[in-house]
Amino acid sequence: MKLSLEEKASLTSGGGTWHTTAVRDVVPALTLSDGPHGIRRPRDSSTGSTGSSGDALGLRDSVPATCFPPAVALGSSWDPGLAGRVGAALAGEARALGVDVVLGPGVNIKRSPLCGRNFEYFSEDPHLTGVMGAAVVTGIQSLGVGACVKHFAVNNQETDRMRVSADVDEQTLREIYLPAFEHIVREAGPYAVMCAYNRVNGVHASRNRWLLSELLRGEWGFDGLVMSDWGAVNDRVAALEAGLDLEMPPTGTDEEIVAAVRAGRLPESVLDVAAGRVIRLAERVRARPRHDGGWSAEAHHELAREAARASAVLLKNDGVLPLAPGLRVAVLGEQARSPRYQGHGSSHVVPTRLDSALESLRTAIGVTFAPGYRLDGVPDPELEREAVETAAAADVAVLFLGLPDAAESEGFDRTTLDLPAVQIALLRRVAGACPRVVVVLSNGGVVSVAGWQEHASAVLEGWLLGQAGGAALADLLLGTHSPSGRLTETIPLRLADVPCHLHFPGSDGHVLYGEGRYVGYRHHDTLGTEVAYPFGHGLTYSRFAYSDLEVRETGTNEWLVAFTVANTGERAAQEVAQLYVAFEEEQPTRPRHTLRGFAKVGLEPGASARVRLPLTGRDLAQWSVERGGWRVDPGAFVVEIGASSRDIRLRAEVTTPGDGYLPELTGMSTLGEWLAHPVCGRVLRERLRGAPGDSEPDPALLRLALGIPLIKFRTFGLGLTAQVVDDLVAAVRTHS
Amino acid sequence: MKLSLEEKASLTSGGGTWHTTAVRDVVPALTLSDGPHGIRRPRDSSTGSTGSSGDALGLRDSVPATCFPPAVALGSSWDPGLAGRVGAALAGEARALGVDVVLGPGVNIKRSPLCGRNFEYFSEDPHLTGVMGAAVVTGIQSLGVGACVKHFAVNNQETDRMRVSADVDEQTLREIYLPAFEHIVREAGPYAVMCAYNRVNGVHASRNRWLLSELLRGEWGFDGLVMSDWGAVNDRVAALEAGLDLEMPPTGTDEEIVAAVRAGRLPESVLDVAAGRVIRLAERVRARPRHDGGWSAEAHHELAREAARASAVLLKNDGVLPLAPGLRVAVLGEQARSPRYQGHGSSHVVPTRLDSALESLRTAIGVTFAPGYRLDGVPDPELEREAVETAAAADVAVLFLGLPDAAESEGFDRTTLDLPAVQIALLRRVAGACPRVVVVLSNGGVVSVAGWQEHASAVLEGWLLGQAGGAALADLLLGTHSPSGRLTETIPLRLADVPCHLHFPGSDGHVLYGEGRYVGYRHHDTLGTEVAYPFGHGLTYSRFAYSDLEVRETGTNEWLVAFTVANTGERAAQEVAQLYVAFEEEQPTRPRHTLRGFAKVGLEPGASARVRLPLTGRDLAQWSVERGGWRVDPGAFVVEIGASSRDIRLRAEVTTPGDGYLPELTGMSTLGEWLAHPVCGRVLRERLRGAPGDSEPDPALLRLALGIPLIKFRTFGLGLTAQVVDDLVAAVRTHS
Repeated sequence: MKLSLEEKASLTSGGGTWHTTAVRDVVPALTLSDGPHGIRRPRDSSTGSTGSSGDALGLRDSVPATCFPPAVALGSSWDPGLAGRVGAALAGEARALGVDVVLGPGVNIKRSPLCGRNFEYFSEDPHLTGVMGAAVVTGIQSLGVGACVKHFAVNNQETDRMRVSADVDEQTLREIYLPAFEHIVREAGPYAVMCAYNRVNGVHASRNRWLLSELLRGEWGFDGLVMSDWGAVNDRVAALEAGLDLEMPPTGTDEEIVAAVRAGRLPESVLDVAAGRVIRLAERVRARPRHDGGWSAEAHHELAREAARASAVLLKNDGVLPLAPGLRVAVLGEQARSPRYQGHGSSHVVPTRLDSALESLRTAIGVTFAPGYRLDGVPDPELEREAVETAAAADVAVLFLGLPDAAESEGFDRTTLDLPAVQIALLRRVAGACPRVVVVLSNGGVVSVAGWQEHASAVLEGWLLGQAGGAALADLLLGTHSPSGRLTETIPLRLADVPCHLHFPGSDGHVLYGEGRYVGYRHHDTLGTEVAYPFGHGLTYSRFAYSDLEVRETGTNEWLVAFTVANTGERAAQEVAQLYVAFEEEQPTRPRHTLRGFAKVGLEPGASARVRLPLTGRDLAQWSVERGGWRVDPGAFVVEIGASSRDIRLRAEVTTPGDGYLPELTGMSTLGEWLAHPVCGRVLRERLRGAPGDSEPDPALLRLALGIPLIKFRTFGLGLTAQVVDDLVAAVRTHS
Repeated sequence: MKLSLEEKASLTSGGGTWHTTAVRDVVPALTLSDGPHGIRRPRDSSTGSTGSSGDALGLRDSVPATCFPPAVALGSSWDPGLAGRVGAALAGEARALGVDVVLGPGVNIKRSPLCGRNFEYFSEDPHLTGVMGAAVVTGIQSLGVGACVKHFAVNNQETDRMRVSADVDEQTLREIYLPAFEHIVREAGPYAVMCAYNRVNGVHASRNRWLLSELLRGEWGFDGLVMSDWGAVNDRVAALEAGLDLEMPPTGTDEEIVAAVRAGRLPESVLDVAAGRVIRLAERVRARPRHDGGWSAEAHHELAREAARASAVLLKNDGVLPLAPGLRVAVLGEQARSPRYQGHGSSHVVPTRLDSALESLRTAIGVTFAPGYRLDGVPDPELEREAVETAAAADVAVLFLGLPDAAESEGFDRTTLDLPAVQIALLRRVAGACPRVVVVLSNGGVVSVAGWQEHASAVLEGWLLGQAGGAALADLLLGTHSPSGRLTETIPLRLADVPCHLHFPGSDGHVLYGEGRYVGYRHHDTLGTEVAYPFGHGLTYSRFAYSDLEVRETGTNEWLVAFTVANTGERAAQEVAQLYVAFEEEQPTRPRHTLRGFAKVGLEPGASARVRLPLTGRDLAQWSVERGGWRVDPGAFVVEIGASSRDIRLRAEVTTPGDGYLPELTGMSTLGEWLAHPVCGRVLRERLRGAPGDSEPDPALLRLALGIPLIKFRTFGLGLTAQVVDDLVAAVRTHS
């Protein structure tokens, strides 16, 4: 079917804010919808570029859909199977609502806890992010709905997001900010990728040829469509040339494309490819089997509750949890009654129903309640007094604290890790009135626990748990289920300890990724910085023992790591066993250890399970700028198995032969490099042995000489004339 | 006088390792000589490219000359007048030895305390470095000898120094690594600048046109010659084109230049300019008045002693110093007898004489002595036992500790801040045997004091103090003079606290300057990191009071800061009063404070002095990448006066109107920027007032909108169509 130039141009831009352009009866329009944890289908389907209410995107009013736990929570489950089921449920609702592509998951790295959109992302760690993101994509696409992985790439802050250049070195890009995307593209084959708003090393992602074409398609083999984040395109012709297929929403500039082709400024073949990818996406999603059209709001709510239960992290517990039967329990805090369960922006969903922890607890065990504080942060002595009195009459006070609704959104970043002062003040007074206080937190980005957690007998981090979070929290507090979430990001002691603190969020249109690869625990564990709670941490109502670590070589740079986890406590619970690869160096040249595998294991009391995790050369590799590829150096490393990045239970030293790569030696290679080379070292030593004046040099002079490129000795001596150096270089070329 | 092409080419390379090329009787050969703190004139003037002993540079044997305190010490004097006198003395010796250009001072920033060449540099702070460097240059050139400022630029490590790329962002370059060079070029007019070995953002300094031509000459007005560091040129044609005039030492490649000109690959005008600069340098140094040829080794030794006395830093003192008359004093430590007084490499001088602290103390007060440890670090229980016994029989043990000779050199970096373990072990045992221990340190780079200084009643940091350091230390220990040195670099608690620790010294040919502008105290004071001793710290034998701070405006963005310093103690002493400009921000966007002035004031007991220091807009400015220039934002800042970066005694809040710069507003300027603009904000607000649907948006949505570029509202709403945005941009163009 032949399309006109105009038709092809029209395909590369939306037909409206939330759908692609239809071409006659040849190409249907596809409906796209946020978002990562629930379908946000705007109620007014006419919203589009003519809107004037400041809500042209339809952020305020959408058709009810299940609000599953946002990624901050779902990631904390460390359960890809669960994430896959949530993805499938999203797809079911998408199909019922006529949505062809779900705009998610969001897989950006949590570089700073201040990032306003962290609630939409999984982790500070790329491995965990990649695994969870791939699970969601696979789940969504299992029903023939497209997933759109976002925001590609290095979109780690909201401040100035449409202009700021993320200035990141190549190794950091490869090891921190790109691997999750790479893993998802290679393992889950998403139908679409959404480019980020920001610039990457000076070039907007929407027109970044290296990112969209060379890397994503060329190197990783992505075969889907790249669409823009909403409003990310600044130059449509440049974007098309770079590899962007679809501009969203439309800017009414199709004629620019047509004119550029006619004027010879844009090859028509480029347009053909982009339009072809839009057509292919339409074919893909329309090729799915017919849908029965139904989904059970009840069943999805139950899944949201299960996911929420799996996601809350028990940070601290002196034994007060689970709440013993018969205690007088006071529930305090407005957020127990008016839950915060999602963040603001494009991912904001109108839920099908909403559970509050207060109602769930009241129904289950009968509790007293006082709101204690106002959500807007204005001090209210009367509310506080009432809450303290309520606490005084109870055996345990369960106090719900959290960030206010307006604190977290797409579009801006936080500037502090602190909870509102009125809430901290309330906690202090409640702790003075009631012997045991359980704090339950609601927040999308990490909040500081330093300075107040000593007043709490237990702290349950509830993140933003979606519409069933209230019921899930009650399940955990009462012990009908054991907590099983684990931290996917470090909780630092102070904001100043965050590795990017002095650079975030940049200024003058640039943000320097100066901390490099040392993000989150990679920084803290390498430097030995004290933290409030480490990456991977989370308590439960039972205990686990680790034993019998075995690392079996299964091939060249391939191992199978096996160990046993046993539930040695009194309750059924789940453990998240974590595998780190560690390099122990006196002066660090790389992060001390990095997560390379994990398994969530549910065990009855007394039961045990053998966990098996594969390990490959890539898991040991570093990105080599010099090689332009991954590199495995020969030598020892340590396989660490533990319950957090700072609670390593088992260790085994393993040796890798490396990947055999030897850099080419030239005249600019140093004397030290020449002497260290397995072949060339011998050649050079023979040469030097014959040199006149071959006396023992003093140690400092020798160390100095080792760092000098061979070619420089033509003037520095050692008998290495220019001719000798040329001969040596020629000799090793022959040898290698 | 017309020179042939060959003659001109020959001028752009050396005529030997330590001299330039003579052309007939038209251009004389100039003699160049290391170094920063003493003239190193190789004894064998025939050393050159034919050498084969590994010492073609003649590092081991040179004509005796006064070894003044290396820059690590001289910088600690905070006394530009003294530095100028040392520079003049260097020039006197240079003239007597027939040296035309002294290869110094070294003014690189101490990014890491591990840098092997830190002993040749002044400070972690660019202001202090610039002032001290300019004083040395002015001193040297006062006798018509050329100074050669080095190593330009960003040569902050020795590891892989001939290849590594210092990857530094523009703002950090401008605010940290370039200002000392800029200050010296503008204020002292050095005859020459030496380019560094390394690459700067990928391009070797020796062929870096931006560095050598655009910045140095174009922007700063440098009118002298640029020579290469010894062996820094890799491509002579490229180097000439970039602005390098003189390759040192010669590589015998003049014919490449001739061929390039003949082939049209190198414009002859480029060669004319470079050769002309060599000729001009010859004219400059040969235009000086005739020299009497004499200098007094005695007088220069005395100057070296004065400089050493001014440079040692008293870190800690419980009152044991100065040593009271009549005490039984044990001097311990091999370094009391065999002083370490300079580092290795090109700056290594054969001194005219050498004072040891042991001899000086023995002569003055009669002391016992035991060496206590071997210099090579091999444990020797017998030496240790003897030292402990000697200590036990004394009232005070003065224990000399320090880094071994081979630990510090040009050409390699250290990997630890620790003193040798045998020395720490000795200290512990001595402290157990003698009630009061004074530790005297000898080291060119900072050593850690954590973990041992609690065993010492006093710690005197002696750095490397040159040939008269031993006598100078005795002067200070005995109290004939009061210590007056101050730290020019932070002493951190742990190596892991050094801001560049995780990046230093890089790998794969790159080192990321990830800490950006936060070098030294700029990092520690902004984050509130605990340190062992802060920048600017140093005790003496008296006390000083600060009072009556006045900041008087003397022009637009010009102030005169005045305050009074009074000696309130019992002894004559010198205070180093420091002026910092501080910006107090909740979330730091720049270093919390930076040194912008200082004055060393010598006062008799009871005396006081009024100190006046100027302050200008540049002292408040930040480099703006967006503007491509310095920028002073309007607002408040604080003038801090103190005795160290953490001992601020006086504070005054001052307001600057800024420099009037307003960035141009465009469609890509955000809604927030438009609304904040003094003129455009009004225009836009008028426009929006008339917009339909002008209801109160929710707070999160409003904050989100403020970060969006105006042009994006053509699809996002607010009534801002593309036409309206275009009109607005046109309107502000007219207004501004």
